[in-house]
Amino acid sequence: MTRKIIIDTDPGQDDAVAILLALASPELEVLGITCVAGNVPLALTTKNARIVCELAGRRDVKIFAGCDRPLLRPLVTAEYVHGKTGLDGIALPEPTMALQDRHAVDFLIETLRAEAPGTVTLCPLGPLTNIATAFRRAPEIVSKVERIVLMGGAYFEVGNTTPAAEFNIYVDPQAAEIVFKSGVPLVVVPLDATHKALTTRPRIAAFRALNTPVGAAVASWTDFFERFDRAKYGSEGAPLHDPCVIAWLLRPDLFEGRFINVEIETQSELTMGMTVADWWRVTPREPNALFLRDIDAEGFYSLLTERLSRL
Amino acid sequence: MTRKIIIDTDPGQDDAVAILLALASPELEVLGITCVAGNVPLALTTKNARIVCELAGRRDVKIFAGCDRPLLRPLVTAEYVHGKTGLDGIALPEPTMALQDRHAVDFLIETLRAEAPGTVTLCPLGPLTNIATAFRRAPEIVSKVERIVLMGGAYFEVGNTTPAAEFNIYVDPQAAEIVFKSGVPLVVVPLDATHKALTTRPRIAAFRALNTPVGAAVASWTDFFERFDRAKYGSEGAPLHDPCVIAWLLRPDLFEGRFINVEIETQSELTMGMTVADWWRVTPREPNALFLRDIDAEGFYSLLTERLSRL
Amino acid sequence: MTRKIIIDTDPGQDDAVAILLALASPELEVLGITCVAGNVPLALTTKNARIVCELAGRRDVKIFAGCDRPLLRPLVTAEYVHGKTGLDGIALPEPTMALQDRHAVDFLIETLRAEAPGTVTLCPLGPLTNIATAFRRAPEIVSKVERIVLMGGAYFEVGNTTPAAEFNIYVDPQAAEIVFKSGVPLVVVPLDATHKALTTRPRIAAFRALNTPVGAAVASWTDFFERFDRAKYGSEGAPLHDPCVIAWLLRPDLFEGRFINVEIETQSELTMGMTVADWWRVTPREPNALFLRDIDAEGFYSLLTERLSRL
Amino acid sequence: MTRKIIIDTDPGQDDAVAILLALASPELEVLGITCVAGNVPLALTTKNARIVCELAGRRDVKIFAGCDRPLLRPLVTAEYVHGKTGLDGIALPEPTMALQDRHAVDFLIETLRAEAPGTVTLCPLGPLTNIATAFRRAPEIVSKVERIVLMGGAYFEVGNTTPAAEFNIYVDPQAAEIVFKSGVPLVVVPLDATHKALTTRPRIAAFRALNTPVGAAVASWTDFFERFDRAKYGSEGAPLHDPCVIAWLLRPDLFEGRFINVEIETQSELTMGMTVADWWRVTPREPNALFLRDIDAEGFYSLLTERLSRL
Repeated sequence: MTRKIIIDTDPGQDDAVAILLALASPELEVLGITCVAGNVPLALTTKNARIVCELAGRRDVKIFAGCDRPLLRPLVTAEYVHGKTGLDGIALPEPTMALQDRHAVDFLIETLRAEAPGTVTLCPLGPLTNIATAFRRAPEIVSKVERIVLMGGAYFEVGNTTPAAEFNIYVDPQAAEIVFKSGVPLVVVPLDATHKALTTRPRIAAFRALNTPVGAAVASWTDFFERFDRAKYGSEGAPLHDPCVIAWLLRPDLFEGRFINVEIETQSELTMGMTVADWWRVTPREPNALFLRDIDAEGFYSLLTERLSRL
Repeated sequence: MTRKIIIDTDPGQDDAVAILLALASPELEVLGITCVAGNVPLALTTKNARIVCELAGRRDVKIFAGCDRPLLRPLVTAEYVHGKTGLDGIALPEPTMALQDRHAVDFLIETLRAEAPGTVTLCPLGPLTNIATAFRRAPEIVSKVERIVLMGGAYFEVGNTTPAAEFNIYVDPQAAEIVFKSGVPLVVVPLDATHKALTTRPRIAAFRALNTPVGAAVASWTDFFERFDRAKYGSEGAPLHDPCVIAWLLRPDLFEGRFINVEIETQSELTMGMTVADWWRVTPREPNALFLRDIDAEGFYSLLTERLSRL
Repeated sequence: MTRKIIIDTDPGQDDAVAILLALASPELEVLGITCVAGNVPLALTTKNARIVCELAGRRDVKIFAGCDRPLLRPLVTAEYVHGKTGLDGIALPEPTMALQDRHAVDFLIETLRAEAPGTVTLCPLGPLTNIATAFRRAPEIVSKVERIVLMGGAYFEVGNTTPAAEFNIYVDPQAAEIVFKSGVPLVVVPLDATHKALTTRPRIAAFRALNTPVGAAVASWTDFFERFDRAKYGSEGAPLHDPCVIAWLLRPDLFEGRFINVEIETQSELTMGMTVADWWRVTPREPNALFLRDIDAEGFYSLLTERLSRL
Repeated sequence: MTRKIIIDTDPGQDDAVAILLALASPELEVLGITCVAGNVPLALTTKNARIVCELAGRRDVKIFAGCDRPLLRPLVTAEYVHGKTGLDGIALPEPTMALQDRHAVDFLIETLRAEAPGTVTLCPLGPLTNIATAFRRAPEIVSKVERIVLMGGAYFEVGNTTPAAEFNIYVDPQAAEIVFKSGVPLVVVPLDATHKALTTRPRIAAFRALNTPVGAAVASWTDFFERFDRAKYGSEGAPLHDPCVIAWLLRPDLFEGRFINVEIETQSELTMGMTVADWWRVTPREPNALFLRDIDAEGFYSLLTERLSRL
């Protein structure tokens, strides 16, 4: 039986790979892709989501435009990582498929109302603005979500955006707070996990060796994407953050983590957006999230490459 | 030529070992030991400092009582780590040497006024209340401090007290803020460094094999001290935090770190006392501290054991 | 020419009087009434709005249910002021008119999109959750609002809910922050103004002397409503906060105020929701609101009574 | 029997008048004057205190230099109110009497230790840095203070420094928090009281009519001091804040207030230093201060003029 998912995303090269991985996986039914402002502005994330679906030959996927800015804070973007388009690395055709008419938040609400309770998994790959707005607008849908598996946050591997915060959570900490306090079962894929599965020359070569347009795009994107991490961390490659979310749905056995309390810092500018994870259980706060810390990198890249070969 | 130091401390087993290491090292002249409330209340830290000096046969060391609580927050102590006395692990005689009459803060101020500028190093091993109070009371002494080498904070290895903060900084974050913004050259020995030099069975055995009262005490203290870390982290031993400060003075080549900006979180209860270290240099904030992350554990324990053998 | 308004409200006796005043005033065209949780939960505010419209013989008014809780904080209500129903004071028939199908936020968005720019005035009488949500969901509508005239806040007359905050702003300070920073021309009717127009025995008697169901209801509501202020402030009567908003639309000459900067406190629990009004212009912050401080009480009650007599 | 007081002050024209009022009052024994940075830097407040004592012919008064900056925040001064010297308005001779050798904080500690418990009243007229530092340095003195009668804060009459805070508290909110939470009986003379006793032409004329050097100085100072309030508030005169503290000691019957809870805001920059006074008792927080709101202005100026005539 397939699992129904909604991908909430701000592509971004790694978002793009995550979308491809989902579309290539028969275990998953992608009910829709909801776009949000994040890595780049909304006009680009909605365009990039369509580019990716067309690359996968999936013009039938429903793509929705969502919130164009965070709940309370001004939008911060990350062109210094993703390039000006958000999908820098390879030239791809302008998309011709249309966006859906409905707002992403309305799609989230209506879908969760329509589907059987506990059957839809949300997969946020960017700031949590769309999800939080839907939860606030229609609180009755919260209990109908099966699970939220999100890329975001960091605990031991802090500091990709500020010394305390990871980008997705930093961009909209208030939205994150709403989601983390919602009571929905959460799986969090933080930098702690994603930084343990870096791209390498052989791994990128394996993408390219698929000898397909998808393989070429993924290889080019990861080539581009690496530049930032190589420069900053001096590491050999870069994490492919967002595909880890989809990989967890397919192969949770590739990951290890702890079910702990995770709170979002929203009061102090210095630590704004930090995911304060009680990894060592030093507080009495109730666990609310499975917080992943380890990943089988070889298993992850094998899965990813095999699936991408199907497209 | 010897380096003049003042040890500001809240013993604590690891503080005790640090004091012994300093007293055993001819490169260092201990001008005085200033006690502060921290691991245990002031009445015990002043008692423990005297026990340790008497154990070392150094009744001549000047020991001062300082602040009995943090600048603004209520005192938090750590008997769950150090035991009820702060020096649990071995029974030692009640101290008979007297405390000095002067308040620790006055001693700090007067000493820094009296000594030549740039010749006195402060070695805080506990909350920074005494140092901050002295800096506020007599701002002209700030520029006379050669350097502050302190044990405190954490960045990658967060969470020994709250999920965001290390004990020494958490207890008095406002004092820490004063010190970190003071402009004095800072060397910070955080959990990131100390957790890389754990006690082990052979290392404790080496202390005991000294076959001296000092060796027996240090072995017993570390035996006791380990219990907390073994239970919490599942690690093989425990860090000996505070002696790393003294070790850095003797052998800075045993350590590696970065000269970066470190800010203290004081606004949010959730992240209170976090040392927000700009390790990856993602902010434009000016560097203010050499923040250590690595230590040569074998070198450290060799140094420590050799020096303790002299007592 | 009539002025088009949308009343955003959480009735509440004084909200009810404000609705009646608007419906009785030919200068105003009430495009719709959007309800929000505040004085009482949403189920009651939507019911009360319908009771009031039916009392006025205006079953044609469009009434919408909106947000049932604040953006980020848990809902706080004020039954201790308004009674269990929110309209305690007189027994009125259960309403039979239906709520509109659309969500209040959608109505706000669609109406502001459909109407000519600068022709619709928003009149929030409760927490600003609906308005803020609409502004975030559809940012392009912000510039189309003619003006927002709202009841909320306090500066000199602080403290009806906490020592620093007025109820409407306190309940959803993040929503208030969005509205106060939106750039829409703001008129703020704070406690400073409303506390200068208290009900008195003669004023309530004048309502009752209308000898109509509306007069009887308004007299009974104000009778009930007074109890809180008499007990708390020892004052002779109570302010009729919300009708002042409508009165300003009809007779701005009855009010005096200053065009100043007003910021919303959202960081500190102690002062949460305070409207920090730069009345004395001691900061360089840009003015963003006409903040009213004085009202011609006699003129206000004359206007109100005369208008209510038309229903 | 006389009451022993210590005046802690940052003169300032109104501080100067308060000192004169105290020195002219046989009911009070001024044990010492401790100076702090505030209205002007410490070098000037220590100079001005000596100028004032010499003007009163009281070279015997002990004057101490205290803290030159707030506990945690950078010093903010108020030359725009008090003029460049802090005592602008009349030329007075350079003082020749010496400052005491001891630090003000040491004097406070030693005096409170030496005197019988409950016999010394502290009269802070500026930022509370000295008092807070003494309380932290020697906690055992806290319970020995008879009472603290301080000028500071505002509730209804907010906004002489920021829209939320009064100058003395704003300058060192952390010190204020220490004092307000100390448990010492507090009498707070806020702007709410002092703004009800403005200087007027006849009142200033009465000072001048004393026909003494003191009368001339007080008249000139108040003349100068008025300029700020006239310009800002458009009021007829200016409050003489600090002498109200001394007046309350002499004639508490001239004042009215409530015994309520007062908390100091220290978390948010927007409302930093606000005295959050629970005047309406809307919180369960325990009362900790007699917060004055009313003053018999005629009685106050009569008392002041009569006493000044004795000098």
